[in-house]
Amino acid sequence: MSAVLYGVGLGPGDPDLMTLRAHRLIAGADVIAYPSLAGGASFARAIAAAAIRPGAEEIVMEVPMSTARAPAQAAYDTGAARIAKVLDSGRDVVCLCEGDPFFYGSFMYLFARLAARYRVEVVPGVTSLTACAARAAMPLVARNERLTVLPGPLPEDELRARIEGAESVAIMKVGRHMAKIRGVIEALGLTARAVYVERASLPQEVVCPLSEAPDDAPYFSMILLVKGGDPWL
Amino acid sequence: MSAVLYGVGLGPGDPDLMTLRAHRLIAGADVIAYPSLAGGASFARAIAAAAIRPGAEEIVMEVPMSTARAPAQAAYDTGAARIAKVLDSGRDVVCLCEGDPFFYGSFMYLFARLAARYRVEVVPGVTSLTACAARAAMPLVARNERLTVLPGPLPEDELRARIEGAESVAIMKVGRHMAKIRGVIEALGLTARAVYVERASLPQEVVCPLSEAPDDAPYFSMILLVKGGDPWL
Repeated sequence: MSAVLYGVGLGPGDPDLMTLRAHRLIAGADVIAYPSLAGGASFARAIAAAAIRPGAEEIVMEVPMSTARAPAQAAYDTGAARIAKVLDSGRDVVCLCEGDPFFYGSFMYLFARLAARYRVEVVPGVTSLTACAARAAMPLVARNERLTVLPGPLPEDELRARIEGAESVAIMKVGRHMAKIRGVIEALGLTARAVYVERASLPQEVVCPLSEAPDDAPYFSMILLVKGGDPWL
Repeated sequence: MSAVLYGVGLGPGDPDLMTLRAHRLIAGADVIAYPSLAGGASFARAIAAAAIRPGAEEIVMEVPMSTARAPAQAAYDTGAARIAKVLDSGRDVVCLCEGDPFFYGSFMYLFARLAARYRVEVVPGVTSLTACAARAAMPLVARNERLTVLPGPLPEDELRARIEGAESVAIMKVGRHMAKIRGVIEALGLTARAVYVERASLPQEVVCPLSEAPDDAPYFSMILLVKGGDPWL
């Protein structure tokens, strides 16, 4: 049997929200891989830390803090090559992924580079989407309701059009786009229905009405908007 | 301290995809509650079975197999009253929920009935959404892409309009709506991009191109549609 690349979702941040399968794979791994912001810590590694076997080999992919594509692509090219070398030697690699690997996850970049040549298994994880809803005590969708997930960096006009046509909405990666997003929601008269969640499930978690949210939001933040009346009864 | 009602997401079906927190809460529970199709087994209980403490008290909510609202509402009224009685006695209740409690989950009906009067903690779970994507080896969304989640029972015209305006799409609860959904996707020329997933993560799992999907789909089935070119590289 050839070696396997595991893309393991770790959930939103609380290590207790890892799946049993994720925990077992990490605890048994001889080689792990994970992205890290260049010069900074790795959030993925921090979530998994207590499960990592002492002495495990660690492949760190240092991703530059930039919106430019090329430097990040180079980091994943290098990471993929190092992972491929381990797989070629017959050893499995467990790649640590914040949240879920296929839901805005950086594992996709490795998947795109390696899935055609190697056995890959993706272990889904709890997404920030439902973790935020849980912490905000805000049911997302029921019955025949629609859910729209929008990244905060989208242009203002597109955000407005997409929110207008939606039922439940989650706006991901709020970060430095807070002012724009807040303006759109205010213009649509929906501020009173919007909840802001930052770092869901972590000790530094913030949950508050959008009207009380900070102007400077971190990358790991979300706005939830449930437009329906009271459809939950 | 007053007693707590835990709404615990169990993930898509494989018990290994429960979170560590879900597993610990279930294993320590004196009282569990879960819905069950009237006269049939409970999928939620089946997922959690190995973790349930022998001798735990079980509150079963028998939900009639019907699209009518009133009988289901009555079942949740009765269930909520039984759970309230346990909470009033100072004992916690762990409610078992397939997938995630706030993502098309039946826990919402209990939440609506009890959250104003009792302490409730929602433990998020792996959704069928990302479980299906993992099993289909199909990244859902990256970077600034949008995701639209649509329930299969929506009217044909609405499904078509929503899919046309979307990027990545997940159509949940395909079931007996397969012919209608297939027709919409075919008319939009998107069949070649659509993947069908049934009972993701379970032994009976089916993953295939939509063109090869059965005409009679079960309730726990999904169609994934990624419209973009090759945005993953």
